[in-house]
Amino acid sequence: MNSNLTAVVLAGGAGKRFWPFSSDKTLFPFFGKPFIEYSVNMLLPKQVSRVVFVTNSTNHTAFSRMKFSVPSVCMMQKTAHGMADALLTAAPEIQNSALLILNGDDLTDRGLFSTICEKAIKEKAFGVIPAIHTSRYQPFGYLKTDGETVTDIIEKPGEGNEPSKYISILGHYIADGNLLLSEIRQVHTDQDDVYEKALSVLMKRYTFLFHEYKGNFASLKYPWNTLDAMDILLSSLPAHRGNNVDIKSNVVIEGNVYIDDNVRIFENTKIVGPCYIGKSSIIGNNNIIRNSHIGTGCVTGFNTDITRSYIGNHCWFHSNYIGDSALEENVSLGSGAVCANLRLDDGHIHSHVSETRMPTGKNKLGALIGGNVRIGVNTSIMPGVKIGKNSFIGSGIVVERDIPEDCYCSGKYTLSITRNRENTAGKNRDEFKKQL
Amino acid sequence: MNSNLTAVVLAGGAGKRFWPFSSDKTLFPFFGKPFIEYSVNMLLPKQVSRVVFVTNSTNHTAFSRMKFSVPSVCMMQKTAHGMADALLTAAPEIQNSALLILNGDDLTDRGLFSTICEKAIKEKAFGVIPAIHTSRYQPFGYLKTDGETVTDIIEKPGEGNEPSKYISILGHYIADGNLLLSEIRQVHTDQDDVYEKALSVLMKRYTFLFHEYKGNFASLKYPWNTLDAMDILLSSLPAHRGNNVDIKSNVVIEGNVYIDDNVRIFENTKIVGPCYIGKSSIIGNNNIIRNSHIGTGCVTGFNTDITRSYIGNHCWFHSNYIGDSALEENVSLGSGAVCANLRLDDGHIHSHVSETRMPTGKNKLGALIGGNVRIGVNTSIMPGVKIGKNSFIGSGIVVERDIPEDCYCSGKYTLSITRNRENTAGKNRDEFKKQL
Amino acid sequence: MNSNLTAVVLAGGAGKRFWPFSSDKTLFPFFGKPFIEYSVNMLLPKQVSRVVFVTNSTNHTAFSRMKFSVPSVCMMQKTAHGMADALLTAAPEIQNSALLILNGDDLTDRGLFSTICEKAIKEKAFGVIPAIHTSRYQPFGYLKTDGETVTDIIEKPGEGNEPSKYISILGHYIADGNLLLSEIRQVHTDQDDVYEKALSVLMKRYTFLFHEYKGNFASLKYPWNTLDAMDILLSSLPAHRGNNVDIKSNVVIEGNVYIDDNVRIFENTKIVGPCYIGKSSIIGNNNIIRNSHIGTGCVTGFNTDITRSYIGNHCWFHSNYIGDSALEENVSLGSGAVCANLRLDDGHIHSHVSETRMPTGKNKLGALIGGNVRIGVNTSIMPGVKIGKNSFIGSGIVVERDIPEDCYCSGKYTLSITRNRENTAGKNRDEFKKQL
Repeated sequence: MNSNLTAVVLAGGAGKRFWPFSSDKTLFPFFGKPFIEYSVNMLLPKQVSRVVFVTNSTNHTAFSRMKFSVPSVCMMQKTAHGMADALLTAAPEIQNSALLILNGDDLTDRGLFSTICEKAIKEKAFGVIPAIHTSRYQPFGYLKTDGETVTDIIEKPGEGNEPSKYISILGHYIADGNLLLSEIRQVHTDQDDVYEKALSVLMKRYTFLFHEYKGNFASLKYPWNTLDAMDILLSSLPAHRGNNVDIKSNVVIEGNVYIDDNVRIFENTKIVGPCYIGKSSIIGNNNIIRNSHIGTGCVTGFNTDITRSYIGNHCWFHSNYIGDSALEENVSLGSGAVCANLRLDDGHIHSHVSETRMPTGKNKLGALIGGNVRIGVNTSIMPGVKIGKNSFIGSGIVVERDIPEDCYCSGKYTLSITRNRENTAGKNRDEFKKQL
Repeated sequence: MNSNLTAVVLAGGAGKRFWPFSSDKTLFPFFGKPFIEYSVNMLLPKQVSRVVFVTNSTNHTAFSRMKFSVPSVCMMQKTAHGMADALLTAAPEIQNSALLILNGDDLTDRGLFSTICEKAIKEKAFGVIPAIHTSRYQPFGYLKTDGETVTDIIEKPGEGNEPSKYISILGHYIADGNLLLSEIRQVHTDQDDVYEKALSVLMKRYTFLFHEYKGNFASLKYPWNTLDAMDILLSSLPAHRGNNVDIKSNVVIEGNVYIDDNVRIFENTKIVGPCYIGKSSIIGNNNIIRNSHIGTGCVTGFNTDITRSYIGNHCWFHSNYIGDSALEENVSLGSGAVCANLRLDDGHIHSHVSETRMPTGKNKLGALIGGNVRIGVNTSIMPGVKIGKNSFIGSGIVVERDIPEDCYCSGKYTLSITRNRENTAGKNRDEFKKQL
Repeated sequence: MNSNLTAVVLAGGAGKRFWPFSSDKTLFPFFGKPFIEYSVNMLLPKQVSRVVFVTNSTNHTAFSRMKFSVPSVCMMQKTAHGMADALLTAAPEIQNSALLILNGDDLTDRGLFSTICEKAIKEKAFGVIPAIHTSRYQPFGYLKTDGETVTDIIEKPGEGNEPSKYISILGHYIADGNLLLSEIRQVHTDQDDVYEKALSVLMKRYTFLFHEYKGNFASLKYPWNTLDAMDILLSSLPAHRGNNVDIKSNVVIEGNVYIDDNVRIFENTKIVGPCYIGKSSIIGNNNIIRNSHIGTGCVTGFNTDITRSYIGNHCWFHSNYIGDSALEENVSLGSGAVCANLRLDDGHIHSHVSETRMPTGKNKLGALIGGNVRIGVNTSIMPGVKIGKNSFIGSGIVVERDIPEDCYCSGKYTLSITRNRENTAGKNRDEFKKQL
């Protein structure tokens, strides 16, 4: 076993399924920092002596500028050709190391990676594979196990063919980078399972330990996964009051609420933690803000309800309901616009991803809105709808389908204008006043 | 005169005009108990020694299981064939009694029935007929009077032919059940006035006293009459705080508000009595609830206004205005949905009953909604509209007509999607922030 | 110089461009008094010994009944034929005076007219012309200046032909009414610049002093100018609490708020001055009212936001957002109706005046609504839209164009009603309740 342990972080994915968000998934900002800070940097176990990032053309510069607690190097994957290709891209930097293979898009609890490394070293295992139990079929790699060991891994076996209820998650511990790369180079397959096929061969020859993980897990694959990640991140956010925070009378703050510098919170508003309110944001009068992330420089206006939602920087609201929604930066909604989060039948919500209608696994999900979008007054966005960046949505309409980027979407309808036969000039509402 | 006084309660009506409510009228729940509890049981005078209920197939079982302060019996009327048929159905149980004939659908003030019985006994009258003064024509039985006595009763005389301004209401006191039944059996008519014709004959031979009633009166004929009954019932509801009631800060409660066990009321909400809040209901933040009945297990959500409305059990709201409306159980409204309660011209509101456009006698009336209905966000229900049970109403539409049961109602309209020529990415709203 | 100084007030304009407001511009009410009270009466300098009003058929009676600090006379201009015609109409009353020519539609700060008179007397000037600096071309009279003097005035020179950046405003001081009238009578022009051409001639012969005015200025030409005038008037409104004012708990009042007699303000409402709340108005629960004029006898209802808006007498609201809008008296909005005040692109707002699309010079402007208008629930009025008096606007629609007087405007659309395949009767929302 190589005493030199390198974390190789897969961050080269194209993120097409992450639309309408234009941020690279690993750079998606939470609490003012990129997601990678939480998914990798903060979780790096002390056994790791260097990090190799496999990047893409979008995030390469950002990663190259980042500083870490251990030496790091970035290798750019030309085009997103899957995990095996990513590892081959990183080959020059990882071949002579033991490897902890991490996914830049995945978020786990603190301690998992550390436990994996300890287990590998203590048990002198060639590999350790963390896995999570799943009750419904998902298109991932399923493990075949024998007591404490993993004997095989099968990518997307198809529903009914699963060898167990366990799906593999990263980080995988592999004691010898050279052996892994060598097997990868010998795999012949016409599917996206080169890495799993290589592991499968190694599992026949070496001991791979099974490690069941029961903690929180989120993976930024689809845009709604930002809400899963937010939930995990909010759960460990401490209460905080920044400098120059102005909280008016009759504001109720419950639970852990992180309020950054220069935030102003107006009267009769309630904030239920966990919540994050970014720098210089203004929370208006008579709001309720629950279990949400509000970026910097936002204005929530009068009478807004933001519940279980991710709000990027510089978003503006006014008397809106934003439920279980995620909005990138600089999104504005007119008064009375609603991001609905529940079907009439309370059923599971679907969303289209590249023309395919996908189950989101959620029965509460609102809108997913790219940057710079404007939405008119009294407009309703239906559950699971996605809106591309830079699009404008007119007033008083119902949006039931995804709206591409750079669009102007408005309702076509006819007003009937006829002669009014009533005149209220002389009408008296004194009777109504008595009821007040 | 028979010293044995039997109350015969007419509760066999079919209730077709009560649509969209599917509850039997006499069982329509107020404060967790069926309407009959208030319309009959609580008002039974001490002179009554037993009660005979004329039931229908819907309510027969419920009535049979009820316990009363005096012995009771239920006689099921096969089909709803009017009042005379109901009395003939009950004949075996009422023939040897003096009778106090009550309507299970009618609600009067405490004391009326007792006064009627006292008057009959003191004056040794054969009959006593309570009556209310009415200024506009209504299709009921009109009385012809001579001082203190009633000399005739004419069912639906037609506008302009009324013998007086007084219409008969129950409970009628009749000293001899046998005589009444005997006359009923001899009436020949092709209209629904057998009972009145029989009374008319008896009035020629016996003394019927006239008793003007000036108190509250409601009759559950049409669905909006539930609001009339609610008003009367609320007016005598005491203030009450149940066990385990949780009232957050800055909640204002004025007047008589009955708050049942396990109710939670959130911040900045005002409740103006008389009001009833049923068990385990949650009244959200920044609500106003006025002169209303909220059933058990309801959730009003954030920023809801419920005014002069009846809300059944397990209803959910979110930022709604519910004015002068009645909702059966398990109705949910999406954020921003409104039950409008006022015409643009403040005029009287009509509603359709079995294809006929009826005046409701109200200029403030909202929606009448059957059980299990779902209404989408930002949808507007126009005054007097009725929605049948189990129907779903889509988002962002205006419902101006009644919607049958088990329907899915949505708006057909077209979105225009064109290229957006504006881009707000670089736009700066700092100027707007200065106004905040 | 004539020691006798007469203020001649031009108030004879037809006000067509002031539509949809039907009030005469000079009589448009602020704080319960006509605009002329602020634009002229309060600003009259002590040097003025009498006032001559040039009226029109609409306001003549009102002006004739007004009492002023100095003697006044009203001369009715038969039809609105411009400023020169107005002065000729007033000729018998102004010919033997020095003149301070004022515009009844214009509002300036206190002190300007007084300064003009002092300057004229001190410098023994024939004329004094106040002017304001303007950065963009406007169709007004531009001044040609030479140091401290005005050498010419050119009406509507056309963009690029301006002789300076200064446009003339009233009040003009003219030392000799006879000379002015005489020149006016000699002008030959086919345009509406008789007065300016006469001045131009006089400027060649006499000294006209230039006076730069840097204070507030508003002119009631277009309906949105009422908001400009309101801003100026509000800025000097003192804080005041009338008799019998009822302010409930947790009401926040900031800045100068003038609250007249018998006003009621309900819980959890914030009023941010400067604001005026007229007699007997009711401000409901959970409102925010900012920088606005609320007339007498208004009811704002629950949860209304009125920001930078003029509200006439007897208007009713309920959960509305009224932003940067002006409403004449007796206007009512249903719950959820919004007067939107911002374009999706934050751009400048245009409005049609007599078929011409005009820039309003504002990027925040809501609706302009004539008297007795009714607007249904959840309806959206787009920025800059004008609605004529006595019109009714239906529910749930978007109004993007001006609506004439006496109209009934509603949306034409189709509801699709199909069989509902879902039933929520047995559905349980206990999971949702846990999130509350």
